[in-house]
Amino acid sequence: MTNPQTVNPIPKPSVPAPDILRCAYMEIVVTDLAKSREFYVDVLGLVVTYEDENAIYLRTLEEFIHHNLVLRKGPEAAVAAFSYRVRSPEDVDRAEAYYKELGCRTERNKDGFVRGIGDSLRVEDPLGFPYEFFYEVEHVDRLAWNYELYGAGALVRLDHFNQVTPDVPRGRKYFEDLGFRVTEDIKDSDDVTYAAWVARKPTVHDTALTGGDGPRMHHIAFATHEKHNILYICDKMGALRISDRIERGPGRHGVSNAFYLYILDPDGHRIEIYTQDYYTGDPDNPTVTWDVHDNQRRDWWGNPVVPSWYTNASRVLDLDGNVKELVKREDKSEMDVTIGADGFSYTREGDDEGSYKGEASKGFKLGNSL
Amino acid sequence: MTNPQTVNPIPKPSVPAPDILRCAYMEIVVTDLAKSREFYVDVLGLVVTYEDENAIYLRTLEEFIHHNLVLRKGPEAAVAAFSYRVRSPEDVDRAEAYYKELGCRTERNKDGFVRGIGDSLRVEDPLGFPYEFFYEVEHVDRLAWNYELYGAGALVRLDHFNQVTPDVPRGRKYFEDLGFRVTEDIKDSDDVTYAAWVARKPTVHDTALTGGDGPRMHHIAFATHEKHNILYICDKMGALRISDRIERGPGRHGVSNAFYLYILDPDGHRIEIYTQDYYTGDPDNPTVTWDVHDNQRRDWWGNPVVPSWYTNASRVLDLDGNVKELVKREDKSEMDVTIGADGFSYTREGDDEGSYKGEASKGFKLGNSL
Amino acid sequence: MTNPQTVNPIPKPSVPAPDILRCAYMEIVVTDLAKSREFYVDVLGLVVTYEDENAIYLRTLEEFIHHNLVLRKGPEAAVAAFSYRVRSPEDVDRAEAYYKELGCRTERNKDGFVRGIGDSLRVEDPLGFPYEFFYEVEHVDRLAWNYELYGAGALVRLDHFNQVTPDVPRGRKYFEDLGFRVTEDIKDSDDVTYAAWVARKPTVHDTALTGGDGPRMHHIAFATHEKHNILYICDKMGALRISDRIERGPGRHGVSNAFYLYILDPDGHRIEIYTQDYYTGDPDNPTVTWDVHDNQRRDWWGNPVVPSWYTNASRVLDLDGNVKELVKREDKSEMDVTIGADGFSYTREGDDEGSYKGEASKGFKLGNSL
Amino acid sequence: MTNPQTVNPIPKPSVPAPDILRCAYMEIVVTDLAKSREFYVDVLGLVVTYEDENAIYLRTLEEFIHHNLVLRKGPEAAVAAFSYRVRSPEDVDRAEAYYKELGCRTERNKDGFVRGIGDSLRVEDPLGFPYEFFYEVEHVDRLAWNYELYGAGALVRLDHFNQVTPDVPRGRKYFEDLGFRVTEDIKDSDDVTYAAWVARKPTVHDTALTGGDGPRMHHIAFATHEKHNILYICDKMGALRISDRIERGPGRHGVSNAFYLYILDPDGHRIEIYTQDYYTGDPDNPTVTWDVHDNQRRDWWGNPVVPSWYTNASRVLDLDGNVKELVKREDKSEMDVTIGADGFSYTREGDDEGSYKGEASKGFKLGNSL
Repeated sequence: MTNPQTVNPIPKPSVPAPDILRCAYMEIVVTDLAKSREFYVDVLGLVVTYEDENAIYLRTLEEFIHHNLVLRKGPEAAVAAFSYRVRSPEDVDRAEAYYKELGCRTERNKDGFVRGIGDSLRVEDPLGFPYEFFYEVEHVDRLAWNYELYGAGALVRLDHFNQVTPDVPRGRKYFEDLGFRVTEDIKDSDDVTYAAWVARKPTVHDTALTGGDGPRMHHIAFATHEKHNILYICDKMGALRISDRIERGPGRHGVSNAFYLYILDPDGHRIEIYTQDYYTGDPDNPTVTWDVHDNQRRDWWGNPVVPSWYTNASRVLDLDGNVKELVKREDKSEMDVTIGADGFSYTREGDDEGSYKGEASKGFKLGNSL
Repeated sequence: MTNPQTVNPIPKPSVPAPDILRCAYMEIVVTDLAKSREFYVDVLGLVVTYEDENAIYLRTLEEFIHHNLVLRKGPEAAVAAFSYRVRSPEDVDRAEAYYKELGCRTERNKDGFVRGIGDSLRVEDPLGFPYEFFYEVEHVDRLAWNYELYGAGALVRLDHFNQVTPDVPRGRKYFEDLGFRVTEDIKDSDDVTYAAWVARKPTVHDTALTGGDGPRMHHIAFATHEKHNILYICDKMGALRISDRIERGPGRHGVSNAFYLYILDPDGHRIEIYTQDYYTGDPDNPTVTWDVHDNQRRDWWGNPVVPSWYTNASRVLDLDGNVKELVKREDKSEMDVTIGADGFSYTREGDDEGSYKGEASKGFKLGNSL
Repeated sequence: MTNPQTVNPIPKPSVPAPDILRCAYMEIVVTDLAKSREFYVDVLGLVVTYEDENAIYLRTLEEFIHHNLVLRKGPEAAVAAFSYRVRSPEDVDRAEAYYKELGCRTERNKDGFVRGIGDSLRVEDPLGFPYEFFYEVEHVDRLAWNYELYGAGALVRLDHFNQVTPDVPRGRKYFEDLGFRVTEDIKDSDDVTYAAWVARKPTVHDTALTGGDGPRMHHIAFATHEKHNILYICDKMGALRISDRIERGPGRHGVSNAFYLYILDPDGHRIEIYTQDYYTGDPDNPTVTWDVHDNQRRDWWGNPVVPSWYTNASRVLDLDGNVKELVKREDKSEMDVTIGADGFSYTREGDDEGSYKGEASKGFKLGNSL
Repeated sequence: MTNPQTVNPIPKPSVPAPDILRCAYMEIVVTDLAKSREFYVDVLGLVVTYEDENAIYLRTLEEFIHHNLVLRKGPEAAVAAFSYRVRSPEDVDRAEAYYKELGCRTERNKDGFVRGIGDSLRVEDPLGFPYEFFYEVEHVDRLAWNYELYGAGALVRLDHFNQVTPDVPRGRKYFEDLGFRVTEDIKDSDDVTYAAWVARKPTVHDTALTGGDGPRMHHIAFATHEKHNILYICDKMGALRISDRIERGPGRHGVSNAFYLYILDPDGHRIEIYTQDYYTGDPDNPTVTWDVHDNQRRDWWGNPVVPSWYTNASRVLDLDGNVKELVKREDKSEMDVTIGADGFSYTREGDDEGSYKGEASKGFKLGNSL
């Protein structure tokens, strides 16, 4: 198989990359602001920094910048911006020069594209995603000590984005050029890459690349302090009789070693609740590579990944607000090679026998074959 | 459909029932004592009270009687006894008279059938299960304060048994006559009962009846103090590359409101790890009835039940040590009516629309249809 | 020292004791209903079953009887009733006969003394406490599954009462005659008893006797599921700037092995938040005796008990609503023998050296001598 | 009062500061290697990377560099090095030039001063502390996924150091020049600084300055994932009857918002167990200033700080291995102004009344006046 990333590599610009601090917020389009408010504020407990009839600006409990999520009312659910904070005002200039050299469409707005944010650059990046870079931002109260506002499922921090792109190695090189460290990836023995996790702040990721038709947004992840906070969100969604919006989990990831839950907002945008990955800030932090056939890679307990998690994702907008067209993945699909008819996954590598008497499971988890 | 329990009801004896305190221990036959020891002692951290080449006697950290589980070496995995402690020595006599009037085969052993237990009665009960009743028991150290022995997944108490029997209402009446309270059950609109939970101590159950071909042992459940203890057991099983022995969960039960995990021992005996149900000790404690088509009844988060959980269970022995023959369930099967081709389950009762745009889910959880 | 309990023992009645199920609710007098509501409802999250301008009826999340706490407005903070549920209507009659034979003042009200409770008996018991016994009660929704109502510090159950009485052995015999099991106690080598824990339901206690001038109410305890629920209550009280109402803890008890916190309501009534003691329901459950000089008995981590915890308690009312006079404790006081000038407590029994180099601590915890 | 930091400021070198990644390990001298091993390995569960008769090299479960703690056998308990990892080999050169310009004694060892570490610089820094900087290090297995090694109190990461120094503002400027961000501090209305927290990695600190006679090491802190891990360490120390080594806590810090515990090793070196502070990586991260008279600053629940926590600390060694002489603090002491005779602390700022009826507490926490 020809490795697609060799076909059309993204060149590294000659100018320096901006110094990116962290993923900072996402702007998403939702079709019913009231329903979305109910989900993000009443169910999940995000804090409203500002709201009007067209948009709601939300933040997590430990955040001190204006927002981590903008819900904008629109006719079609989509993602308008993946926004990163950079280290200084000059890094916005650097980002502009960087993307211009890449030949990307860019737009600069000294007053910010959204409330609370100052001088910003938006680009259609080489992978087709609407990316934003800013430094200037309105400070708001960090509510870390305001425990009277904490619910049992308290979201304290925006942790990461996750993006669907057809050619993961191509995207990975682009992010490495931008100064991201690759912390983990999923591959097979044919050297196909199925996914990669890349970080600026010293956690496992600020964003990740999931192989599939793209550009699409796979999920946005908020962090809690403890695992019981995540379990409570499930309990509450059960009590509210919206357990069908629990898509996958809760569980322990293999990749990242974090505890996770995937839920769906009223428009089907996927939200991850996430806690307890590890420090990755050293430049020689070892990259962990997982075999796509290791059935503990996505769930350390071997629980199966539901197909919708592989197939569904949110469309993204270009800088004119139009839905970006999809490019098909040409590499093998992780879903096909792991839960399809030809799939082979193992619990114990090389294991040819079931784990207990009378069971021809070959190290598979029961129920995987559903 | 003719309700089978009317065909062959178990009569209530004229003599008083024994005063049963609680489920106390189970004696199970395992085929490889070393492998079982690795599972129960090294993985789960049960404490060895006594062991020799034929048997291992295990207890939980807060127990003060000799054991909660006996592993006996044998040629075929099975269950030899479901053992209950009664309030006084005289209650063993009462049990003997009670089962004799029921026409059951009984056996009395003044020295106990197993080490650590004194005067005991064993019976083949009307449902075909090997039941034991005893009062006399050797006291051992309650290790509640010995935190140096606690692992991260500390099992502190035996909580309950679960038995598979074809005719749940017939079994339920038998347990009510024996003095058990029915705390919860699962039914449908045709008044078919799929399962029932019955208690002597004031928790949700000391045993439960699961509809299916029986007599078989569905599972034995140990309690932990907190949910993170259960999550850790999963994490450790992942680390030991035995995640294929995690059969179902972890999750929140609808029935019992407890947090649960089902795992399989090396012989396929099913163990539940369980925490945080509610007090049921008042005589007028309300019975909770769940609709079999409520997809939050078995998992409050709507996660699907794997088929093996419905179909697999351990055989039980008669008092001669022979495997008891099975009686087929004639009522509808919970698996068939909920995950089979005709199944219909709901998240929101009466909901005819999906929970989000463009999704014709009718309140089903995604992935359920796998 | 003459052991005071020999002077004036309470005789055991010839009639049978009522069959007591559990401590069920306490009725307390508060001086400012609005302030108390803020504490019990807004801070602690108890659920209002009913309220009017004179009283608020509160229950825990897993309760199905009308209430676990009644706040009644009055001129002076005090306790009006310690109320227990009995197994049957006839047990109220039995209680009446039992206390009449004891020569106690009794009052019977077929309609209940408070809303939601039917036929009840109130007595001034031999220790001077206003005790109530009832069976009939209005059922309300058990909110166990209503996770949307759970806060991060969710109180799920009333666990126990704690009473201050001058002569602990005298009180202990009275409770044993009433059918309570003694689960734990604190003594010294002179056979002075400083405290005792007694149970009807199979936990460590339904009430406890703390040696001191009495009758007074030491505390009422509500249970949570997990320790983090208790920590959150502290965090929230810090955020609300009422941390001066955190009197003692959080910590791990030696006695009961439970995790605890003591806080003070606006009138100074002491509330314990409590989780995870052990099963005590067997008749031969071993009684644990602690040495008063073991500095891990009250806090397993050796953290010091603040003097107010020993000295302060709520006064109780007689059946006319007058504050009951105090009888002085004549035995030694636990505070004096453990934190007074003559106190000697140990971490390691018999230890004569400090736990580390250069420290003449003799096994004392640093800071204890404050 | 003359502000002492103006007397003798440490000048900022003209050469660039090294790019410091994080605090990486501490080398401490212990007097009994076997006793220390028992504490750090058997009680706390740190992992041995290497050991011989003179030293033990320990790491946390998520670490991938050779060690986070070196225990070296010696005649007198002390600290030999506070060691930081820098971003590149060249940053060790930068550190050397930087400290030489400061006039500090430096020592360079291309083979490292301890096993597992390559080219290193050690200095006696301007505050008198033995500081080390290195980049080269032996990688070892990150045990994050090895849950079979996790105990219930699993330490996953080295979090920070804490140093006692007489003149906090002087030290603070020195750290800011070195590129640290000040995240929090404690001051009074006379502008006396009692403590400051400074960070390179984006947590609340890599080290902190505590005002007092110095140079001394106040504590070294290891992180756990959850609060229950910390509570378990207390439970286990109780079970091992070493609760007198629990010096302070567990509790919630005001400063840092983290959950904490302070314990003492067999030589009296203070170890903090710490979890869940917040992200501080943005350059404009707001500095939080606490009033020294706010009694929630050190413990959010208002629990008193034991005097030993203020007064005791470990001596440090110079580069010849001799104990460094102490310089006395001339500013006011935090202990004196908060728990001494003249102390005034508040729970509710400006509150002149007690929090409940009849209590003249003026917002003090009960027990504070012990």
